[in-house]
Amino acid sequence: MVSKVVFGRGSFNQLSEILAPKRLSMNAPFIYIIDDVFKNNQWLTSRIPLAYDDKILFISTEEEPKTSQVDAIVEDIILTTKELPSGIIGIGGGSVLDLAKAVSIMLTNEGEAKDYQGWDLVKHPAIYHVGIPTISGTGAEVSRTTVLIGPEKKLGINSDFTPFDQVILDSELTKDVPKNQWFYTGMDCYIHCIESLKGTYLNTFSETYGNMSLELCKEIFLDNNLTAEESEEKLMMASWHGGMSIAYSQVGVAHAMSYALAYVLGVKHGIGNCIVFDHLEEFYPEGVKLFKAMKEKHNIMLPQGICADLSDADFDKMTTIALNLVPLWENALGKNWKQIITPKKLKELYQKM
Amino acid sequence: MVSKVVFGRGSFNQLSEILAPKRLSMNAPFIYIIDDVFKNNQWLTSRIPLAYDDKILFISTEEEPKTSQVDAIVEDIILTTKELPSGIIGIGGGSVLDLAKAVSIMLTNEGEAKDYQGWDLVKHPAIYHVGIPTISGTGAEVSRTTVLIGPEKKLGINSDFTPFDQVILDSELTKDVPKNQWFYTGMDCYIHCIESLKGTYLNTFSETYGNMSLELCKEIFLDNNLTAEESEEKLMMASWHGGMSIAYSQVGVAHAMSYALAYVLGVKHGIGNCIVFDHLEEFYPEGVKLFKAMKEKHNIMLPQGICADLSDADFDKMTTIALNLVPLWENALGKNWKQIITPKKLKELYQKM
Repeated sequence: MVSKVVFGRGSFNQLSEILAPKRLSMNAPFIYIIDDVFKNNQWLTSRIPLAYDDKILFISTEEEPKTSQVDAIVEDIILTTKELPSGIIGIGGGSVLDLAKAVSIMLTNEGEAKDYQGWDLVKHPAIYHVGIPTISGTGAEVSRTTVLIGPEKKLGINSDFTPFDQVILDSELTKDVPKNQWFYTGMDCYIHCIESLKGTYLNTFSETYGNMSLELCKEIFLDNNLTAEESEEKLMMASWHGGMSIAYSQVGVAHAMSYALAYVLGVKHGIGNCIVFDHLEEFYPEGVKLFKAMKEKHNIMLPQGICADLSDADFDKMTTIALNLVPLWENALGKNWKQIITPKKLKELYQKM
Repeated sequence: MVSKVVFGRGSFNQLSEILAPKRLSMNAPFIYIIDDVFKNNQWLTSRIPLAYDDKILFISTEEEPKTSQVDAIVEDIILTTKELPSGIIGIGGGSVLDLAKAVSIMLTNEGEAKDYQGWDLVKHPAIYHVGIPTISGTGAEVSRTTVLIGPEKKLGINSDFTPFDQVILDSELTKDVPKNQWFYTGMDCYIHCIESLKGTYLNTFSETYGNMSLELCKEIFLDNNLTAEESEEKLMMASWHGGMSIAYSQVGVAHAMSYALAYVLGVKHGIGNCIVFDHLEEFYPEGVKLFKAMKEKHNIMLPQGICADLSDADFDKMTTIALNLVPLWENALGKNWKQIITPKKLKELYQKM
């Protein structure tokens, strides 16, 4: 689990104080990995305490993070710094946080990032790493995984060394998120909760986190009695608790299907989950009903027909990738999941999207 | 925060597997600090993986843990082991867990435990320490404090090094807790929630944890629709979330008053909280009403007249100790708390108990 967390509006201002005791030497810089939407945002960047060889890498999140991208950043850091960094600080959404986690792992573990996609393959502790979410919902700030697209699969590096050593939860950093993205990423959290709470892997630990997160999602996306600030704070906590819920259980049908959409079509995770979940009444009847109500309330129009032009080979690839995510199907549908979801049935579902 | 947690009925069986990679050498033993109610309990002790110089210290929890007791255990460990221990494992209720945390800190920090009562006074990381609760409610398994009675005060060692490195939440270990103790310790959790949720220090982080814990307490102590196993699992989670809630806010009137009761009369924490809270309608009207309903439902008779024979000097000592806990009063009553609660008023409250 995350070792330390600071919560509060404006707590980003504590960054300098938090990092100071972690600097190993003048030659061991802090490397900031930041979503490039903040590139010319003085409000944020002026508060980043650069000293010595510290540097900022602005990262485009147009695409889902890739293992090759992790390897390239790691190589760049090794070639341009005198010593291993004192820390990696990720400031952004799920993609940036996952990149920061993966880079901090790959700086101390040999080989390529793709070699570590899976469960508990990481051998050495990562570099000290800090996560600062600027959009809420992914749970990446609290999870023990970093989901990456590799040459063969979209899968996380799940390990005890993956979680952040420090997280700063400052909801003020989420104030300028565009509405659609706010909804898609918030729904990532909502879908985590439904998949966790309706899964066969559920236990009381996950259930209590899932219930709490679900209640917060309803308050934010349906009840509509909150100020903007309250809503931002609550969504940040919903994301945290939703992430904790799946960390101790598993996601389900929507995530399995949207991982494959991301791999084949490059559909981003938040919107991909929404596109898929919209068609999953059969598996999550109440959850999908509530999702449609939220979608309507916020006038969200999801893209239609994204699979219309796919070839049979594309569908085959997509169903194969999705069905390879065994723990997700087993959680969703039980031990006999293969009798419920066949490649043919999965293809039919994709064809509706 | 706690770095690692395992949850589940029977998860205590994983202890051996969890500890094995943490053994530093043959000469660096694991020391088990265990509540002596388990002394002849083969069901539990036979599952403790002793090897080399590992040993068990059975501890009586008749009295609240003391700084002098911590110092004595630390001295004993240093005198009887060849190297610093590989780990300290606490198995018991709040007292035992707090002792285990304090011992692990004092093995690597000079001086006496009383020198570290307060906030952030610990200089060096503690020995690896594991917490395994056998009764639910105190939140000691998750908190960043270890509450001890010192020569001058009852106060915790609050530090980043205090939380356990590993916690095992196995609700089966709580199955034989006597009913009264189950109620008192469960109410410790309930009172944490009320004090946190009604406090001026409240923030959204603590609020979400407090709400979740409070809902679980209601389900367990009022609704009564649970099997014994469900109830044990849920109370374990209520304790965890309640502990998280106060870790990021603060306790209030009941804890300030019961700390002083413990110091002067040796009243144990769980029952002390109940005795005090029963008279706090003025500060927590709804919370006390619900508490009385729970008390009635479970036919709990609290001791009466425990302050009947106290001298004026005793009352003075008690009110002084209680009023010294400034953050607790400030959380409960706001910045102007001294205008609301005077020594005279506090004495009158104690006289009712």
